[in-house]
Amino acid sequence: MSHSAVEIIRAKRDGAELSEDRIRWFLDAYTRGEVADEQASALLMAVFFRGMTPAELSAWTDAMIRSGRRLDLSSVPMPTVDKHSTGGVGDKISLPLCPLVAACGVAVPQLSGRGLGHTGGTLDKLEAIPGIRTALSGDEFVAQLAEIGAVICAAGPDLAPADRKLYALRDVTGTVESIPLIASSIMSKKIAEGTAGLVLDVKFGSGAFMTEVDRSRELARTMVGLGDAHGVRTVALLTDMDTPLGRTAGNGLEIRETLEVLEGGGPADVVEVTLALAREMLDLAGVDADPAAALRDGRAMDRWRTMIRAQGGDPDASLPVARHIEEVRADRDGFVTRLDAMAVGVAAWRLGAGRARKEDPVSPAAGVVLRVAQGDPVRAGAVIAELHADDEDHLSSGRDAFAAAARIGDAPPPPAPRVLERIAAG
Amino acid sequence: MSHSAVEIIRAKRDGAELSEDRIRWFLDAYTRGEVADEQASALLMAVFFRGMTPAELSAWTDAMIRSGRRLDLSSVPMPTVDKHSTGGVGDKISLPLCPLVAACGVAVPQLSGRGLGHTGGTLDKLEAIPGIRTALSGDEFVAQLAEIGAVICAAGPDLAPADRKLYALRDVTGTVESIPLIASSIMSKKIAEGTAGLVLDVKFGSGAFMTEVDRSRELARTMVGLGDAHGVRTVALLTDMDTPLGRTAGNGLEIRETLEVLEGGGPADVVEVTLALAREMLDLAGVDADPAAALRDGRAMDRWRTMIRAQGGDPDASLPVARHIEEVRADRDGFVTRLDAMAVGVAAWRLGAGRARKEDPVSPAAGVVLRVAQGDPVRAGAVIAELHADDEDHLSSGRDAFAAAARIGDAPPPPAPRVLERIAAG
Repeated sequence: MSHSAVEIIRAKRDGAELSEDRIRWFLDAYTRGEVADEQASALLMAVFFRGMTPAELSAWTDAMIRSGRRLDLSSVPMPTVDKHSTGGVGDKISLPLCPLVAACGVAVPQLSGRGLGHTGGTLDKLEAIPGIRTALSGDEFVAQLAEIGAVICAAGPDLAPADRKLYALRDVTGTVESIPLIASSIMSKKIAEGTAGLVLDVKFGSGAFMTEVDRSRELARTMVGLGDAHGVRTVALLTDMDTPLGRTAGNGLEIRETLEVLEGGGPADVVEVTLALAREMLDLAGVDADPAAALRDGRAMDRWRTMIRAQGGDPDASLPVARHIEEVRADRDGFVTRLDAMAVGVAAWRLGAGRARKEDPVSPAAGVVLRVAQGDPVRAGAVIAELHADDEDHLSSGRDAFAAAARIGDAPPPPAPRVLERIAAG
Repeated sequence: MSHSAVEIIRAKRDGAELSEDRIRWFLDAYTRGEVADEQASALLMAVFFRGMTPAELSAWTDAMIRSGRRLDLSSVPMPTVDKHSTGGVGDKISLPLCPLVAACGVAVPQLSGRGLGHTGGTLDKLEAIPGIRTALSGDEFVAQLAEIGAVICAAGPDLAPADRKLYALRDVTGTVESIPLIASSIMSKKIAEGTAGLVLDVKFGSGAFMTEVDRSRELARTMVGLGDAHGVRTVALLTDMDTPLGRTAGNGLEIRETLEVLEGGGPADVVEVTLALAREMLDLAGVDADPAAALRDGRAMDRWRTMIRAQGGDPDASLPVARHIEEVRADRDGFVTRLDAMAVGVAAWRLGAGRARKEDPVSPAAGVVLRVAQGDPVRAGAVIAELHADDEDHLSSGRDAFAAAARIGDAPPPPAPRVLERIAAG
């Protein structure tokens, strides 16, 4: 067995194309524990350097899907379209988007993850709501989707287990930043989830997983191709994550902003990205509806409340409030020339909203509230941000991190559009 | 800890030069078990692709030496020069060479290894001699070296233990074939052994570890540079391993050929390579002696017998003889146009002389005796080789492997010199 693993590693290392059989054997044997971690990490590093051909990538993704169970959503009476974001700072979009699209007649089977490092996770945010359950069985998931059209919960253990094992390995072996490995990881889970359509929010900029727009575009194209090859109609939007999305970064704080959006308000950029993604999702489903109207007339908010209740949460419960709230003030007149997504994300993480290891808890109350956006004029002494923390240590650590976040200069920076481009199958 | 390991892997992966501190930390932590195998294999694969700068390679080698104890040979009253071969088929040269050079007044501290796959190991060959001990303590090693000038034994557990652990990992992770990793593995052990000078026999051709002469030359230059940087004067000879060295491949069979050489006879190519290496070793030690005379007049044989007795062996004992000896005959008149080192090596291995896993035993009697050399004329029906095995299964398996070894054609192949070139520090 081990002999075959070495042959496969050497073949990939030397630039040969791996057959579907070899890829399936390797990933199956790894999932069962017959190929060792050190062999899998060597193969991952070889993939990092050599890349994958489209045939290899398709076989690799397929093997990850087959390592578990592919969900059957045929009992859902509406079309299904999911959304995935590569992650950013203040990216709470899934929270208003899911009930909004459901309110327009398209079911959104949203299996989400938790945050690590400077980016928050949708589940962490949702769990700031008292009573909410994010661990649903497969049957509960499908039933809620069929009934309400909106569900946001954790992926079960039988959804692409090979990916779970590989992802943990990549995290400790410096093999995360590989486009075929990222694309197959995301797409294997989304395809296994059973959705018919998928809209991807692929971010670029300082707070994104990939800072360069070219790499983000390549990732988007790779994922769109994989989705289409596996019968999931897929569209991607490239969106800017150089400055935070909206005015909040933190779990409960982002729920508040979500409620503002669902009430028909909220920051313009959050509304813009939510509507852009909603329109793509409705379009993929072939449903002609106006999502802006569903925000205005309260249908999206109604669907949110129904979804929260279905998962055991109380939509009217008060959200947790941090014990310490400190204001950060501008030290001069001018314009906010830079409000750096990465620095704000790290500040929110240090304040307690994020985690360094996946077993760490997160604070539902901690985070950053921005009182200005990049480009805004400010006066010396005006509050530009609030730092929320549960204790002095976190506050102090977050304060240090936030010091690098905002810069004030004489002239406003040129405006940057949030949605840069749309990528669909060619 | 794990965080630092990932940072180091990522830095190497992205083409940065690793500092001496980072390399030392990583290898120390790996040797102690604090960095996991999957992290080390990822770094090794990154090194495979990125290579190492001279500074990195020197630090890496140094860290491997420091993982154990560097032997002190200052009590040896003669100059010390060792020899290392990258391995080949029928390569028994260390056996006559060590006592020959000792007989000329230079001590040879030969720490050797066992064979794996198609190449035999010097220790496996030596152990065909009844009673011989190859596991000596460090004190026994130094004492025998000081007294006799010749010792061939196994490296102790405290000689570059990081290399032992890394080598086992490279073997199962497809990271063997990297020049900096090969060079640092060989040189860390030779430097730690305490020798003042070192002559390398770097082989190329079908039966060698590296088949291409360019890669062998690069390996030789890398090792010569490493030796000189660590105060060990080093010279390399590039030698041809496209056809076996001498007429035997197998443990006891190679001891017989060694005795022929020490008696002043033996195959011309074995004598040629032995003398070429001996002259380089004497030259490095600054000793003006004629090794050909020491073979002719029996001084080399006397030193061999003394060395064998010192290690508990009986130089007059009969060597084991295989139960089955089968002759292979030429099927036509002509010339031996090809006698392939790899195929002969695999045949000897299958006959029982080699091992597939390092814990397997080897047969002292099994192997191949060649009755012709590449380029020789043959008649149909003449014996070209004998296959020696302890049982029918091994015989049958060896016969199949040998079928690919010899080709007979109409014209002799152009002669190829054994010693291609000499590489010394620039």
